[in-house]
Parts: sequence; C-alpha cells; structure tokens
Amino acid sequence: MHSNALIFIQDLAVIMLIAGLMTILCHRFRQPVVLGYIVVGMIVGPHTPPFSFIQDNNTIQTLAELGVIFLMFSLGLEFNLRKLSKVGKAASFATFLEIILMTALGYWLGRFFQWNHADSIFLGAMLAISSTTIILKALEELGMKKKKFAQLIFGILILEDIFAIAILALLSTISITGSMHAEDFIITLGKLGTFLVVSLFLGILIIPRLLTYIAKFNNREMLLISVLGICFGFCLLVIKLGYSVALGAFIIGAIMAESRQLQVIETLIMPLRDMFSAIFFVSVGLMFDPNVFITHFYPIIGITVAVILGKVISSSLGILITGKSGKTAMRVGLGLAQIGEFSFIIATLGITLNVTSSFLYPIAVSVSAITTLLTPYLIKHSDSISNGISFVVPKFMSTAFDKYKNWLNAHHAKTNTNLDRYKFFNLIQIIINLFIVMGIFLIFAYLLGTPWGDFLLSISNHYIQKAILWALALIVSLPFLIAAYRKIKFLCLLLTELNIKDDKTGLKLKWHKIIAELIPIFSLISIMLFVSALSISILPPLELLIMISIVVTIIIALLYNWFIKLHSRLKDIFLETFQNHDNEKSE
Amino acid sequence: MHSNALIFIQDLAVIMLIAGLMTILCHRFRQPVVLGYIVVGMIVGPHTPPFSFIQDNNTIQTLAELGVIFLMFSLGLEFNLRKLSKVGKAASFATFLEIILMTALGYWLGRFFQWNHADSIFLGAMLAISSTTIILKALEELGMKKKKFAQLIFGILILEDIFAIAILALLSTISITGSMHAEDFIITLGKLGTFLVVSLFLGILIIPRLLTYIAKFNNREMLLISVLGICFGFCLLVIKLGYSVALGAFIIGAIMAESRQLQVIETLIMPLRDMFSAIFFVSVGLMFDPNVFITHFYPIIGITVAVILGKVISSSLGILITGKSGKTAMRVGLGLAQIGEFSFIIATLGITLNVTSSFLYPIAVSVSAITTLLTPYLIKHSDSISNGISFVVPKFMSTAFDKYKNWLNAHHAKTNTNLDRYKFFNLIQIIINLFIVMGIFLIFAYLLGTPWGDFLLSISNHYIQKAILWALALIVSLPFLIAAYRKIKFLCLLLTELNIKDDKTGLKLKWHKIIAELIPIFSLISIMLFVSALSISILPPLELLIMISIVVTIIIALLYNWFIKLHSRLKDIFLETFQNHDNEKSE
Repeated sequence: MHSNALIFIQDLAVIMLIAGLMTILCHRFRQPVVLGYIVVGMIVGPHTPPFSFIQDNNTIQTLAELGVIFLMFSLGLEFNLRKLSKVGKAASFATFLEIILMTALGYWLGRFFQWNHADSIFLGAMLAISSTTIILKALEELGMKKKKFAQLIFGILILEDIFAIAILALLSTISITGSMHAEDFIITLGKLGTFLVVSLFLGILIIPRLLTYIAKFNNREMLLISVLGICFGFCLLVIKLGYSVALGAFIIGAIMAESRQLQVIETLIMPLRDMFSAIFFVSVGLMFDPNVFITHFYPIIGITVAVILGKVISSSLGILITGKSGKTAMRVGLGLAQIGEFSFIIATLGITLNVTSSFLYPIAVSVSAITTLLTPYLIKHSDSISNGISFVVPKFMSTAFDKYKNWLNAHHAKTNTNLDRYKFFNLIQIIINLFIVMGIFLIFAYLLGTPWGDFLLSISNHYIQKAILWALALIVSLPFLIAAYRKIKFLCLLLTELNIKDDKTGLKLKWHKIIAELIPIFSLISIMLFVSALSISILPPLELLIMISIVVTIIIALLYNWFIKLHSRLKDIFLETFQNHDNEKSE
Repeated sequence: MHSNALIFIQDLAVIMLIAGLMTILCHRFRQPVVLGYIVVGMIVGPHTPPFSFIQDNNTIQTLAELGVIFLMFSLGLEFNLRKLSKVGKAASFATFLEIILMTALGYWLGRFFQWNHADSIFLGAMLAISSTTIILKALEELGMKKKKFAQLIFGILILEDIFAIAILALLSTISITGSMHAEDFIITLGKLGTFLVVSLFLGILIIPRLLTYIAKFNNREMLLISVLGICFGFCLLVIKLGYSVALGAFIIGAIMAESRQLQVIETLIMPLRDMFSAIFFVSVGLMFDPNVFITHFYPIIGITVAVILGKVISSSLGILITGKSGKTAMRVGLGLAQIGEFSFIIATLGITLNVTSSFLYPIAVSVSAITTLLTPYLIKHSDSISNGISFVVPKFMSTAFDKYKNWLNAHHAKTNTNLDRYKFFNLIQIIINLFIVMGIFLIFAYLLGTPWGDFLLSISNHYIQKAILWALALIVSLPFLIAAYRKIKFLCLLLTELNIKDDKTGLKLKWHKIIAELIPIFSLISIMLFVSALSISILPPLELLIMISIVVTIIIALLYNWFIKLHSRLKDIFLETFQNHDNEKSE
C-alpha cells in the first residue's frame, strides 16, 4: 500500500468510525446528525486537544468537495420546475423580504463589528439562506411535515435555493472584480440568467431523453455511471465558465429531476450523498477553532440573535402581509430561524477565493450550531410564542391587521386570476425565448477565439469572419426571435382587447390597434440592439450588417412558416418531458 | 475552489464522462463493462497520445484504493459461511487442484522467461484466481446462471475467495521477509487462521447484533454511516496487523453477510462500489503502457495460452475425478478460463510493496483483457469443444473413465456419509476452539507492550507481570479449552465404539477405553505446549507456571460446570445469528 493511501484510509477510518458512533448518539438524544458530524470534525481536528487525528487534511478537503457536489446535486433533484410553479404568492413575497432584509442586516452587522467589506458581504450572504436539511429533519421528527405551514416553509426553501444560486454567482464575481457597481450587477445577473435558461432549455431537451435511453438497458451500474458522468461533466463546464461547482451540481440535479428515472437516480445517489456530505460536515468541524469562539464571543452572540430575530420578523412579516394568520406567520418564521449547510458552502467559497478573513468560518459554524440546536424547540413552542406576542401587541394594531386581511381577501376575489396566469405564462415564454437568443449570440461570440471558430472560418478577412458568425447566430436564433415577436404581438392584442371593453369610441380603437402593431416591432428592434451590444466582439461593420439584414429578411419571408413549425416542434419536445413525467406520476 | 480540488474535479469529470459513454458502448456491443473501464484508463492515461488527461494521478490512485475496499467488501457480502458449507466435494477438489497447478504453472512460466523470484511468485498468484465479476456477467448475459454447471462454478469461486485471502496474506509476508521457508509458511498460515477464526467469531457475535440495533432507528443514513465506520475501522485494524486492506474489507463483508440487514446494506453499498470500482478499473488502465505489450509480446501470448489451457485442464480434471460427466467438466473449465480483478489487486500489492517489476502490471492487464474477451465465446461453445475433444480421445481412455465413474458411485453409496459429516463438524468445532485459544494468548501477549498492559499491571516485578498476563489468558481461554477437550474425548469414544463392533475380545475393549481416555489428555498437553510456544513473550518461569497450574486446576474443579454452560451459551448466541438469518429468509 502507498504510504499516502495508508494515511488516507486511516483518516477515513477515524472519521467514519466516530461519525458512525455519533449518528447513533444523535438519534438517541434526538439531535440533528449534521450537528453530530460537525462535533466529530471538532474532536478529530487540529484545534482541540490532545492532537489532530487527521494526518492528510488535503485529501479530506478534496473529498469534502465531493460532498458539496452530491449535496447540491440532491438538492437539485428535490427542487423541480413544476414545484416552483406551484409556490404561492405568500411564500414568494416572504422569501423576497427575508433575503433582502437578512443580507442587509448581515452586511451592516459586519460593518458594525468593523469588519472589511468582503467579510461583511459574505456574512450577509451567509445569513440569507436557511438550512433545508435541518428544517426537514426537525419537521420530520416533530411529525409536522404535512401541516399547512410546513408547505409554506417548503415553498420558501425552494425559492431560497434560486436566490442561493444567484448569490453564489454574484459572490464569485464580486470576489474576482473586487467590487460591484450597478452595471456589473446587471451584467452578472444577465449572464447568469442566460446561462440558466440556455442550460435548463438544452438540458431538459437532451438529458431526460438520454437517461430514458440508458434506463432501457435495465442496468443500475450503467445508469449510475452515466448520471455521475453527466453530473461531473456539467460541473466541469460550469467551473470553466467561472461559476462555482455547487451551482453546477444544483442545476444538473434540477435538470435530472425532470427525467422519468428520478426515483431510481435518487436511490442510487443517496448513499454517495450521505457518505460524502458526512465528510463535508466533518471537514466543516475540522476548520472550527474554539479560540475563535472565545475571542469573537460578542459577534457570535450578536449574529445568533440577529439570525433568530431577523428571520422570524422578516419572514413572519412577509407571510402576514399576504394575509395569512398571525399563528401561521409565527410558525413559518420560527421554522426558518437558523443557518446551515449553505452558509458553510458560502464560507468555503470565501476561503477558497481568498477574500474573507479566517475567523468568518468558525463564526458561521458557531452560529449555525446554536441556531440548529434551537430550531426544534422554536418550532415546538411556536404557538405559545405567538400567543405571548399577541398578548403584548396593542389592541388597535391587531384590529388594523384584521381589517387589512379582510380588504386583501376581497381584492383577491375580484381579480381575474386565470387571465393573470395566462398573461404571466406568455411573459415567461417571451423572456425564455429572449434569453435563448442571447445565449446563441454569446456562444457564437465565444466561438471566435477557439479552434472551432478557426476551423469554421478559414477565411482571411476578419470582417467577413465576423459577418458570417453574426449571420449564423442570427439565423439560428430566428425561430426564437420570431416566437418572441409573435408572443409580444399576441400579448399586446390581448391587452388592447381587454381595454376596448371599457371604451366604446372608434378613434381610440384605431389607435389601440396601431399601438398593438407598433409595440412588438419596437421591442424587437430594441432587443436586437441589446443583442448586438452583447455580441460586440463579432459585430460586423454597418455595410455588412445591412447585407445580412437583407439576406435574413429574404430567409424570413421564405421560411416564416417553417420557423414557426420548428419552434412549436421544439416546444412540444420540451413540454413532452414534463407531460411524460406527470403521466408517470399519475399512473 | 482550491486549485487541487479543481484539478481533482476535472480528473473525475473526465473519467466519469468517458466511463459513462463506455458503459453504453459496452452494453451496445455486449462486452463486459470492466473491459470498457480499462480502455477508458488507457485512453485518458499518460502512455497514449495525444497527452494525459489526468493531472493528479495521486488522488485517483487514492480513490482507486477505495474501489478495492468496496469491491472486496461486496465480494465478502456475497460470500457467506452458509454458502460455504454447501459447496460440494467436486468443487472443493477442483479448486484445490486448479490453484496448486496454476500457481506452479505461473511460477515456472515466470522462471522460464527469466524473471526474478518475486515476479514469478506474483505471476503464479495472479493466475490462480478466476474473475467472479466477469464470469457472473458472462453467465448472466448467456442466461445460464441457473444451470447445474454454473452452480459448480459458483462453488469454486467461493473457495477461490478463501484461497485468495490466504494468498494475499502469504504474499505480504513473503515480500516483507524476502523469502519463505516451510516454517514461515506454517507460522503465517497459523497466524492468519487464528486471526480469521477470532475475527469471524467475535465479528459474528457482535456485528449483526449491533446492526440490528442500529436498524431499529429505521434511518438509512445512520445505517450506512455505521456500516462504513465498521468497515473502515476494521480495515484499519487489519492494516495495523500487517495484512492488506483488501483482506480486511473481505472479512468484514463476510461478517456483515450474517446480519439480517444484508439486503439493505447491499443496496446501500452498491452505488459506492460501482462508482469506486469504476475508478479502480480505470486506474488499472492508467497503468497500462502499450509499449509493454509490444516488448513483452511473447510472454503475454504465452501466459494467455497458459491461463486458458491450464485453467481448463486443471479444473476439468478436478471435476472429472470426482465423477461428473465430461461435458460438465468442460463447461466448468472453460467458464473459469480467465483472470480479472483479483489479479489487478495482487499486481497493485506487488507495486505498492515495491517488490515486483513494472512490466508485470501491463502484462496482467493484457492477459486479463484477452481472456475476458474470450470468456463468453468459450462458455457459449463449450459443448462443441467437448464434443471435439471426445472425438479425439482414444476409445480405451473413455471406457476407463466410465469404469472409474461407476466404481466411484458404488463407493459413494457404501460410505455412511451422515456419520462422516457428524465427525467432520466435531473436528471443525475442535479446530475453531483451539484457534480461539491461540487468539486469546496472542492478544494477551500483544497487551504486554502497550499502555493497556502497563495500566493493567502497575507491578514492578517483570516475572509477576508475565505470570498474571499468562494466567489471565489461560483463565479466559478455559471455556474453549474445556470444550475442545470434551469434543476430543467424545470423538475418541465415538471412534472406539465404532471399532468395537468389529472386535469382540474383552482385552482389546479395555485397551480401547484407555486409549479413548488418554488421547484427549495427551492432545490437551500438546496443545498447551504449542500455545506456550506461541505466547513465549509472556511465558513466566517454571515455578510460577506450576503455581498458576495449581490455581487453575482449583478453578476448573470449582467452576467446571459453569464453564461448560458459559461455552454452550456463547455457542448458542453465535448460532442464533445464523438461525435468525435463516428464519428471515424463509419468512
């Protein structure tokens, strides 16, 4: 045996042996296992006496990275787009409010403790997202998973996942550029959106079909190895694009969640996730230095109080504003009052990007440990807590709230929600199509510098190279552009029709029709200007652009119907995946 | 992300992506996946153009080590002691013959190619064991798993596993001591036997009960982490005792195979095994240098022919001698005609112990690849091959063989097999008890040097220290010694009774009885002498020994019946595990 392999087996043996004992202890005393793993890390780690049991920290950290991948991949498998569409307004609003407030609160707390900008920003991000693992475990153990407020919590957790993804991408960018202006912010979010839409679109088009093909062989080893191949391959792509591996694992998980093999994949991935996430949480404990707990005692207590009060207030408020009862709002708020695995992933990101101070990690671990320990008690006693609060709240406030609720419910009854949904879905389709167009142009712009581009264009004239690439990008995106144009036109017509009801004069009717024709054309032109700005690196000079426009106009004239058919075919294939899935479920 | 973690993810992504593609290709063209993985290793490896895709070979090798652990652990889970007791005489004899012949053939082939001793010995070991993975896959794909000859093959594979364990232990010893005399050989096997019996005895007493306790929590994560903790912990113990990690993983697997949670454990371990064994086989391919194939072309062809002819002839002969038909013998022989994962594990052992030449690994890979490719065809065409052979064999030989078969069957009918089995099981029990006694003395001898021993004995006089340790070891082993003594006595009586039938004179009867009394006492004395030799490091001087003997004799006189009860209680607990298991199965 290699001496380093021997050391590795020894480290792993120590970790798994103590972790095994710890899982038994945790279940015996009804504490979350995650906390147990972190304690294991502290015990075997270098900061606690008598000595470090771990000799090759590097290999353990590498395996912990696998833990992050499998953890985020499983989270992605559990997250899916259909669930997302079912998240209600209450959860959406509460999530939005909670994340904005907690990020700001975290940042200002950091500044208050006189930490630098980067540490404060990372603290804000760490406090934003609650821990799915710990909430799930607590609700399971209390037998409250099926309750109505638990459904609200799950809705919030799903939306938090999306924010988490955005936060991961933003933090990477901030760390690389050093700061974040409004325009950077928009560009980063634009790129992230394009990347998400293109990869989800292509992924859902290809991956579930591929997995169904592989599943036909009826061989579990083959399915597992293929799933792992796709997962790691996608993570690699995502890393190359400058995003974190956690983001990649989550997205590919969300894509595979749309495949019909979801259940088998979950069963196959579970042992891998359990083993490596255990190692990840142990590695979190390894980084914990008890001295930090003593030297940073006040920040830890301050942040813990901020997490509990901040989360309870912000999410309860969000739920209250959307018209739910005070009891439900309190239950949701108290359930979300902790931080967990995601904070560790962000802390790891900060350390590996080398932008945060070393004390941030142990602080995150301490705060997470305390809030995790409190979670089950907070959920269990949420009703008595909310009773206590209602006792304190002045009479006029609760009366005002009741009036607000009644007004809200009356307003809800009035609005034509079905039509609203329809408009909303049309808007979503327009946005998706436009993101795909952006993606196509960005990919073609990327091709210019690569061997692929050189291979495609063995032409000496640089302008003509660009013109061909740009024209190709335009032609490839035509089906999506045309679809977007038609959707916009349709939406305008719909809005016009609705307004006509209120207004009987012929003159206004005529104007409405003109507007309904003009808006789509104007929006298409502004979209093309935006796309041109994005693809500036392959934008040919004006003369060539005009030539391309003429050629493309002819192509559109000739093939307009074919493009529409192609797009609707693509859409059908895309939606088929979801329908197949639903059929599968209902069978 | 750490730069080394990035490299690691990249390596893993490349391996898993190509491995995923390869599994699909292998299934499409009906080739074993194992072969596909090795080809993946060759493609991404450093020896093939254009360049090495793998940047951090070290981490991949470490993960490959995990592959060996999970592979051997699953093999252990599939192997179990009940299956072992059902292996027939035909399979036992064939295995014995095949392993002796193939090891010798391999050694002499190595010497013929003018390789050094170590390389030749490792070559012999590599050729001895056939590949369970490849045979299982081939039989499955041909739909022959339920056939009678397949059952014979499985019997042989189970016994080969035991030999493999012995070979692994012997090779480690040879490599450390540099050579192997007859007495080393016996001591190594004695120690291995003691270790196996003690760990199986204690393991089966403790582990299944522990797992049943853990399974009560009905939490898969907990069970998995505990199983992994026990597995890695045991591997660590085994490494510390100087054996290979492969041996440890196999034994702990075999112990867990006796637990009632076997099926759940198999489901949980399968994904881990599949992922890491894929990495292991890829790492085998990584080590393959095509240049070796060219420079060692003749040895490779020679060894391949030797494997196929040697295995077919030796195992067919074994099966034939035990009286099976020529067709069955041929089918078994042709099924076993390949080498596989075990040869790679032995080759890895040779490299890591730094005793074999670098060319041995690629040769093993080449021979395994060729013989693996041939296996399905050999099995498929075994009947026509055996028909062809029977055509060539002279008439008088087949007549002689038929006569032999008839004589054998007649002989079988005569012997009192039930009584034979009974005697056999008594003998096994005696041997197990004696091994346990040896184990107890070795453990106490080991205690002397450790802090535990110092803690136990804060006595200044070295002789009294030894005396106390030796006396404790003796007292602890009393139940087993008494049981062994009673079994020997019983066996002697049984044999005497049987002989009396043939002989009616009173004088001989009396002598018989005396012998039946004396033999057990003599054997006990010789056992104690042997045990004293083993525990020489804690053997006190004669005066103290006599004192201990007097004390122990008094203890025996007082507690004789209690010791017998204790032993029978232990035996009951031990056997309960098996019975529980059988009940579970039959439910």
